[in-house]
Amino acid sequence: MSKVLIVGSIGLDSLETPFGKKENVLGGSVSYASIAASLFSPINMVGVVGQDFPAIYVDLFKSRGINTNGLEFKEGNTFRWKGYYEYDMNQAHTLETHLNVFADFNPVLPQEYVNSDFVFLANIHPSLQLNVLDQIEKPKFTMVDTMNLWISTTKNELIEVIKRVNMVLLNEGEARQLCETPNLVAAANQILEMGPDFVIIKKGEHGALMFDKMGEIFSSPAYPLEIIKDPTGAGDTFAGGFIGYLSHTEEINTCNLRKAVIIGSALASFTAEDFSLDKLKTISFADLQERYSEFEKLAAFESLGLLQKQTVI
Amino acid sequence: MSKVLIVGSIGLDSLETPFGKKENVLGGSVSYASIAASLFSPINMVGVVGQDFPAIYVDLFKSRGINTNGLEFKEGNTFRWKGYYEYDMNQAHTLETHLNVFADFNPVLPQEYVNSDFVFLANIHPSLQLNVLDQIEKPKFTMVDTMNLWISTTKNELIEVIKRVNMVLLNEGEARQLCETPNLVAAANQILEMGPDFVIIKKGEHGALMFDKMGEIFSSPAYPLEIIKDPTGAGDTFAGGFIGYLSHTEEINTCNLRKAVIIGSALASFTAEDFSLDKLKTISFADLQERYSEFEKLAAFESLGLLQKQTVI
Repeated sequence: MSKVLIVGSIGLDSLETPFGKKENVLGGSVSYASIAASLFSPINMVGVVGQDFPAIYVDLFKSRGINTNGLEFKEGNTFRWKGYYEYDMNQAHTLETHLNVFADFNPVLPQEYVNSDFVFLANIHPSLQLNVLDQIEKPKFTMVDTMNLWISTTKNELIEVIKRVNMVLLNEGEARQLCETPNLVAAANQILEMGPDFVIIKKGEHGALMFDKMGEIFSSPAYPLEIIKDPTGAGDTFAGGFIGYLSHTEEINTCNLRKAVIIGSALASFTAEDFSLDKLKTISFADLQERYSEFEKLAAFESLGLLQKQTVI
Repeated sequence: MSKVLIVGSIGLDSLETPFGKKENVLGGSVSYASIAASLFSPINMVGVVGQDFPAIYVDLFKSRGINTNGLEFKEGNTFRWKGYYEYDMNQAHTLETHLNVFADFNPVLPQEYVNSDFVFLANIHPSLQLNVLDQIEKPKFTMVDTMNLWISTTKNELIEVIKRVNMVLLNEGEARQLCETPNLVAAANQILEMGPDFVIIKKGEHGALMFDKMGEIFSSPAYPLEIIKDPTGAGDTFAGGFIGYLSHTEEINTCNLRKAVIIGSALASFTAEDFSLDKLKTISFADLQERYSEFEKLAAFESLGLLQKQTVI
């Protein structure tokens, strides 16, 4: 059975949106991605937290069958982010960032993790992502996420990571920044030239685009939510749902990759419906199947048939 | 056989994009929408031009079977727009606008137009749109487009128009502005409350969303173009293709509305591939059917089947 390795940040978030306010709730890419992926496969989690990290969150991970042997407990405080969203939920405003124990994060894989089949390198310093790739034995599928900071400050190292993975996941703005073009198709093609087999560009409320080396493109809708309570972690949920589902399938092919994109999008929509992981952690296969069907209805249109000019009567 | 009435602007555009420069080429909402719609149905065109309007453009309209009896030739010059696009093709920059004869445009329908079945009121002053609605006898389907200017300056009149039509077509920014919310689902629902049966929100490179009163939503992808030579008129092409195809079908139902959205999007993608109507005017049913198939491939994903938890070996 496939095992999924997920490496990235774990944090405690304090945030306010037009729909409420939360203090020190579970956050971080690994938290969202692991809970999402754990619906499908056993997860090997790698991250670092401080002594202030609430035991209930560790219990949550364990209750999902997540292997937490790669979760390091260090002296000091957990990574904390404080921010807010205004009515335009596409933009997070940061008030405070305290890296705390995350500042010296140096992911070392427990021996039992090195044969993980699927690997998601969530957004951390590219040199750490390279480190993790060096520790993995023979992964079937590797995927990397990143952020604007690394594109500005450590672009060459980031490109080294991109060369070595199967899939690059990044958002619209990051794709444009990395490739210095406003055109997303041009950006994706540039990234594919660097080496990976696939690129996914996340467009938030506009869905996602997946590109492969054969020139095939998949355009996935986003689930149209009238109320977005808290978009934090939606991108990481997408990534976790995507790789979790993919690891659950028999084969990495176009059909399964596309289904994985929809699964990721569906889970991301649940995440945005409540604060932190409050909704995501309650989602069952039945909930997910229902939302998947809604995506089908959302995107469906019939074939055209033969167009024929009508004759004027 | 259904006849489609199209009312709006006809102009001569001078523009520059990163891919070239054109002087005094055919533009205006009626030009794009009529050429697109004329693929499917006889068009009744209403607009005003000056004595400088080149005969070749009138010939182009006539060669498509467009009825130009509602095309008024007035003393003076044709509406002219001068602008440019930078690499971010989503944003047109206006250098000059000369309304010329368009300033006093007062659409009066020739008697032979008043029984048109399908009506597209392209972007003009809402009071003129109301005028046109008053002149139509018993349309089967009416659709209105607008712009940010009328939302700012004549919102009440615009809402009067919205109340009286079947479909409202507007872009993302206009929807947000009209409804004072960043959330497009909330905006669409607000507009549906005003009276129309359907709302389409055009999102440019992100495709389009169609909403109906029953809460059904259709998310259409955009065709991923690596090179956009000139996006001018893409929205009007969408509108023309949409209403043209719809008028060509037997019945206004979800299936045909969705197909019409894809037809509109496909034609809009051809428009953006070259300057002015240079590409659009060459498109055949075969070209359109091929691109429609590409939209099908772009949006396709299989059903999920029953999710089952794998058991750990």
